Amino acid sequence: MVGEIRPGEIALEGAAAPEGPRLRFIGRIRSPWGPEDCPKNIGKARETGRGARIELDRDFVPALLGLELGQPVILLYWMDRARRDLLRQAPRHVEGPRGTFALRSPNRPNTISQCTVRITGIDVAAGTIGIDAIDCFDGTPLLDIKPWLGTVDMPPEAGKR
Amino acid sequence: MVGEIRPGEIALEGAAAPEGPRLRFIGRIRSPWGPEDCPKNIGKARETGRGARIELDRDFVPALLGLELGQPVILLYWMDRARRDLLRQAPRHVEGPRGTFALRSPNRPNTISQCTVRITGIDVAAGTIGIDAIDCFDGTPLLDIKPWLGTVDMPPEAGKR
Repeated sequence: MVGEIRPGEIALEGAAAPEGPRLRFIGRIRSPWGPEDCPKNIGKARETGRGARIELDRDFVPALLGLELGQPVILLYWMDRARRDLLRQAPRHVEGPRGTFALRSPNRPNTISQCTVRITGIDVAAGTIGIDAIDCFDGTPLLDIKPWLGTVDMPPEAGKR
Repeated sequence: MVGEIRPGEIALEGAAAPEGPRLRFIGRIRSPWGPEDCPKNIGKARETGRGARIELDRDFVPALLGLELGQPVILLYWMDRARRDLLRQAPRHVEGPRGTFALRSPNRPNTISQCTVRITGIDVAAGTIGIDAIDCFDGTPLLDIKPWLGTVDMPPEAGKR
């Protein structure tokens, strides 16, 4: 919650400690990346050609049944070094400050990031899943794996209500 | 955490209380739906032609800047009546039990559901956002609003690593 504020940025002052339910980490993401070289987004991570791996906690291995090689999945991960108090942010790549909910910045009230990746390997005995790429630091806590579904995850047709 | 188990389902026994960070609810989803008539997924919700509304907590209204009418956004919401202990589930629409991470069921270690919707209205003064449809009960807590981005949220091309 502590950090610099750039011009135009707004932080929620006097933000009380969050009082909602607690998360449960289901495993960790093992990536090639640290704070110095982590790609800014999944597109740039993919361009490097370097894959990554999920290490699932043993308890959750039975919950993998039915996932398939090559399948696209959505990962939800907890950006534990990001800020939770920023309401408006001024990232270098956009002009002027923008609302947190109009950005994919890891800084947000709940620091959950997500992207859609492809499964490149499943080792149930080891509790690991290979993925084509990821844009977070090695060791980032994982919150969820969901099958990607076009009917749920694609934008609805424009013009329809 | 309490409930029936169907044949083939597996619950995580002795699941300790989650010890991760706490969530912060940013508002509520106002929907036409209750436990009796809630559509099973966003596709079915859309077929009803009935829209929904986000009521954002006042604190977070400044974080809307930059969101636009017609824009597709991902909503993350907390399914507060779902189970957190199910590892394998046997929903009626699939054959045999399947791992929780191969399903979009609201029952999962972190009961976060998500879908991609279209913004049909923004009222900054009131802190409300109209959306084309939703598949959760009226009053469901909201966790995040993220702009949908094809480069992040579409599956990567098959065959590429």
